[in-house]
Amino acid sequence: MKIASLKEILSEKVEMDGAQGCKVRLAVTPRDGAPNFAMRVFEIAPGGHTPLHQHPYEHEVFVLEGRGTVWRAGVAVPLKPGDVLFIPADERHQFTNAGETPFQFICLIPAKFQKC
Amino acid sequence: MKIASLKEILSEKVEMDGAQGCKVRLAVTPRDGAPNFAMRVFEIAPGGHTPLHQHPYEHEVFVLEGRGTVWRAGVAVPLKPGDVLFIPADERHQFTNAGETPFQFICLIPAKFQKC
Repeated sequence: MKIASLKEILSEKVEMDGAQGCKVRLAVTPRDGAPNFAMRVFEIAPGGHTPLHQHPYEHEVFVLEGRGTVWRAGVAVPLKPGDVLFIPADERHQFTNAGETPFQFICLIPAKFQKC
Repeated sequence: MKIASLKEILSEKVEMDGAQGCKVRLAVTPRDGAPNFAMRVFEIAPGGHTPLHQHPYEHEVFVLEGRGTVWRAGVAVPLKPGDVLFIPADERHQFTNAGETPFQFICLIPAKFQKC
């Protein structure tokens, strides 16, 4: 059993085309022995965003802190702590910080798409 | 894309042998179209606990609120908000509220083991 405090997990800059001000902590991945899905925690700085993109796997998301939006069919839907999202495979999406503090959320994907 | 506030999701009593004072909200399940994993949010009342048990699938857990413990190899390890856990398949475990307020955590499992 792995038990860790999120703050002790290395925060890495997200290096993707279209990402700005994004960091990620790899909370649970195949490196921990996780066979089916990976838990990542993203933090977007004020003014930052993830890419507007889609991919052939789903997201399950839980908003932890801050204020943000998610792009859904061209509309920026507001998000707040305690919001839950399911983004099906191949659906276009983008997360944006809409506040003055870090926007933090958990985002899970199938393990086979988690690169490290 | 599903977007919901956790507070708006129905809270159901956990009816399992060995569970006491436990409620669950089914945040993302196969009913939402989730093909690979299910997100549930548990809330344990003061004095309550989940069963001490094991099963043939893993948990990925993120602690949201309150103070608790997890049983790991006979030791009650303290848990606080922001703690992350990976519990491999077949490892014995139990969550207990160790505080005076609700102990709340996200717990994900493979979708095929989520009953509804």
